[in-house]
Amino acid sequence: MEITGKNLIGNQLSAKGSSTFKAINPQNGTELPVLFHEADANEIGEAIALADRAHESYRKLSKDQRAAFLEEIAERLTQMKETIISRCMQETGLPDPRLQGELGRTTNQLKLFASVVREGSWVDARIDTAIPDRQPIPKPDLRHMQLPLGPVGVFGASNFPLAFSVAGGDTASALAAGCTVVFKGHPAHPGTSELVAAAIIDAAKHTGMPEGVFSLVQGRSNDVGGAIVKHAAIKAIGFTGSYAGGKALFDIANQREVPIPVYAEMGSLNPVFILPDALKTKGEEIAGGLFNSLTLGWGQFCTNPGLSFVTKSPESDRFIETLSGKIKASEAAPMLTSQIGAAYEKATSALAADAKVENFAAGSNGSGSHGVVAKMFRTDVEGFMATPEASEEIFGPSGVIVEAGSKEEILKAADQLDGHLTATVFGTEKDIEAFPELFTILEQKAGRVIVNGYPTGVEVSHAMVHGGPFPSTTAPQTTSVGTNAIKRFARPVCYQDFPQSLLPEELKDGNELEIWRMVNGQMTKDPL
Amino acid sequence: MEITGKNLIGNQLSAKGSSTFKAINPQNGTELPVLFHEADANEIGEAIALADRAHESYRKLSKDQRAAFLEEIAERLTQMKETIISRCMQETGLPDPRLQGELGRTTNQLKLFASVVREGSWVDARIDTAIPDRQPIPKPDLRHMQLPLGPVGVFGASNFPLAFSVAGGDTASALAAGCTVVFKGHPAHPGTSELVAAAIIDAAKHTGMPEGVFSLVQGRSNDVGGAIVKHAAIKAIGFTGSYAGGKALFDIANQREVPIPVYAEMGSLNPVFILPDALKTKGEEIAGGLFNSLTLGWGQFCTNPGLSFVTKSPESDRFIETLSGKIKASEAAPMLTSQIGAAYEKATSALAADAKVENFAAGSNGSGSHGVVAKMFRTDVEGFMATPEASEEIFGPSGVIVEAGSKEEILKAADQLDGHLTATVFGTEKDIEAFPELFTILEQKAGRVIVNGYPTGVEVSHAMVHGGPFPSTTAPQTTSVGTNAIKRFARPVCYQDFPQSLLPEELKDGNELEIWRMVNGQMTKDPL
Repeated sequence: MEITGKNLIGNQLSAKGSSTFKAINPQNGTELPVLFHEADANEIGEAIALADRAHESYRKLSKDQRAAFLEEIAERLTQMKETIISRCMQETGLPDPRLQGELGRTTNQLKLFASVVREGSWVDARIDTAIPDRQPIPKPDLRHMQLPLGPVGVFGASNFPLAFSVAGGDTASALAAGCTVVFKGHPAHPGTSELVAAAIIDAAKHTGMPEGVFSLVQGRSNDVGGAIVKHAAIKAIGFTGSYAGGKALFDIANQREVPIPVYAEMGSLNPVFILPDALKTKGEEIAGGLFNSLTLGWGQFCTNPGLSFVTKSPESDRFIETLSGKIKASEAAPMLTSQIGAAYEKATSALAADAKVENFAAGSNGSGSHGVVAKMFRTDVEGFMATPEASEEIFGPSGVIVEAGSKEEILKAADQLDGHLTATVFGTEKDIEAFPELFTILEQKAGRVIVNGYPTGVEVSHAMVHGGPFPSTTAPQTTSVGTNAIKRFARPVCYQDFPQSLLPEELKDGNELEIWRMVNGQMTKDPL
Repeated sequence: MEITGKNLIGNQLSAKGSSTFKAINPQNGTELPVLFHEADANEIGEAIALADRAHESYRKLSKDQRAAFLEEIAERLTQMKETIISRCMQETGLPDPRLQGELGRTTNQLKLFASVVREGSWVDARIDTAIPDRQPIPKPDLRHMQLPLGPVGVFGASNFPLAFSVAGGDTASALAAGCTVVFKGHPAHPGTSELVAAAIIDAAKHTGMPEGVFSLVQGRSNDVGGAIVKHAAIKAIGFTGSYAGGKALFDIANQREVPIPVYAEMGSLNPVFILPDALKTKGEEIAGGLFNSLTLGWGQFCTNPGLSFVTKSPESDRFIETLSGKIKASEAAPMLTSQIGAAYEKATSALAADAKVENFAAGSNGSGSHGVVAKMFRTDVEGFMATPEASEEIFGPSGVIVEAGSKEEILKAADQLDGHLTATVFGTEKDIEAFPELFTILEQKAGRVIVNGYPTGVEVSHAMVHGGPFPSTTAPQTTSVGTNAIKRFARPVCYQDFPQSLLPEELKDGNELEIWRMVNGQMTKDPL
């Protein structure tokens, strides 16, 4: 399987645009082989037109057909594993075991969505039966289910080149819902994107999907993404990335003649609260765990714990000392792209220059020339409140420890938090009894609240919420990870007094699909 | 119970603002007693601050407590029925039987939401149990449910002064979800609004709800509504009204520092397709039914069928003739407000002046001096496509009949439709077999598709969708009527590795609430 550098517009390779770019190896800054062609306006338009046409038949396929397509994608990615990971390592600098794990996560995610589609109850089928002789007016027969929105534009993230990229959660959940996908590849890993897209298109051909069910457009320019969001046939957007990027797409989408939903998962500081008794009894262990979580993927995880709160005490001093030792013993490592590295240097330097914040530890440069070092900062609650930069995500291996003078200060700081993807509390039973208000605050600030664990590591399951109040996402009422993510790409339709022959399978009397349905308010799998 | 003309800010009557207004009797244009005080910025801020504080305790109440509050509101509205309806008739010109029915609908809606809250499964509880020894990393315990968003701003509609106003569906579903409400009363029925708000606040006091769980602010100026939408503590907006009004609130909400969802149900033409065989076999009957639907509430229903398609034939001529006879025999009647009447005159005159559209029938002025007459227009598909005004809602008793030359023209016109609340098809079995594509198109254009019925009459039930693609609403993925409306005011939170003592009742192992939960992907009411 060779990388061509072209866009995949439906089933065709296409390279009509004049703008080109190459991938860079972040380990050494060198250019990687293959020249990539940015999609031009015609190619983007063609991909969307194909997606729009394909949606007409794709949305009408049986659930088994759609599930088989998702499973076939997983199968082909597994077959192409070595090729994909080899290129991906060069493009991202991420190590083999990490990418092996991420590919497994990606294929499992596809299979999980296939199982959700096969099971079928996600459509929220509801039937209210007629009462023809009701007074003063008859009650009609009403049947409700979720239908796919239409073609969806999805944007790849730099930090998870497989699980949040071409065949990642947004693509899987959109295809599962019955939507077609036009994917904007992230320019940091274009070869990986092409290989994965080719696997999807091969799977589509093999399982008889209509051409245009999936297309990949490549590009470095914001115009490529903007053109997707502005196109009238696009009905929703999935995005994982920076606040600036997500908010820009959100604004474009809301200014369209017909606004569309943007599911943007953006920045988050993922605050961690380490309560006094936990600090006393397991401070060392938490310092070690926090260091690991903070430096996982060299700090480039959406759920990276960039902000921690402790109550100032001899134990917090010891905690900071332990963490400091680990940070200082760490060596520089390359970031996913030189741009991300430069942004990290700029943001951490600005924070270090702030009089209210102390940069108490930094890693060593080691032998790597293209890396950045881990950095830890400390301040007090007053300093935290007075330093807006301390509440902004720094993408990379840095963190801020806020030393609070009292429980009241902890609660005050918690109350001032913006929206985050996660919030974490380390506490013993004694702590938990002493800080009930903290949990009440945090469940209003985050999509996921964790007790005695680390925020990195997002389970792909039914109960997961990978989302949270703005500015961590533009859509706090949804999740971008886990089976509920499918609901983002559908809307309810009610069929009134339809003859059986015209109803979708999910709503026919017989319930031959054997899905859960709400019939006159009661959950049941029984036929009518 | 006396009307004071004051705002109800929490449990206090308040009239600090200098701007005042009176209600007008639309039957004769005279001012009604009581001077109403528009809420000033301080009063609005106070109402929202109270709502924000009240939310802290209100959201933590048991589901039985919340349900009892909703039921008590219904009880008090029933007790005050005569007072409310008497004032409401004067303010709206709507007849007693209509308002009796609407009050019944309003109290039933409150009781239905109380039953949803008591039943409890709406929170979408999901539990994925831990696998501590999973390799390579342990699987955590994850528990998911919906939590209320916070204080909600709700705007009253002019056309349903009870069911879509102070104690209407938006208020009922927001309170049911655990949100507090700041209500902006519609200036066309301020006395009705105050009476209903007083009933809600009495019910709140009687059932021990925190002060601020509900407030009513009155006003004619857009500033009052704008101040609510802009306030940082407001977390969502419910609105029923015009496209201009809803879109303005949507834009304000998206330009906030922290954007919030706006659930605006706006304009809709509710297209009706009368297929050839139905026209042949029951054209007369449909003409009569359509006339009744079109003139119900003198055309001021959100689901008013303002646009109909027929295939041109002797039967369609007869259909139009029958409809024409009924329209000509009808007499002028007053609109809800003089502004609505003026807008109707302007829009229908503009349409009549269009060369491509023929005003083929109008009602007579009769004896009423403050009324408008029903008007019917006709055009062909070419004329329809070339006349943007024919695709815009005219709020009132008017309609456009489009005569198509063929099935292809019917499908072409259907394909060009914007988003609507409803779409209706009249057809015999033969028609339905001949027009399968029409249903495929319409389910993508509307929130509710109806076969052989009329769009007016929106059932309050589990399967209802009162919503639809933009521009009929700003939130096509939701419904504003029916039990699913509660979901608009909540967002999911995931609790990871929480001790039982800290979990909400809905997520504890024992499931003492006996709600439906998804446990490791399976629906069950069993405890863990």
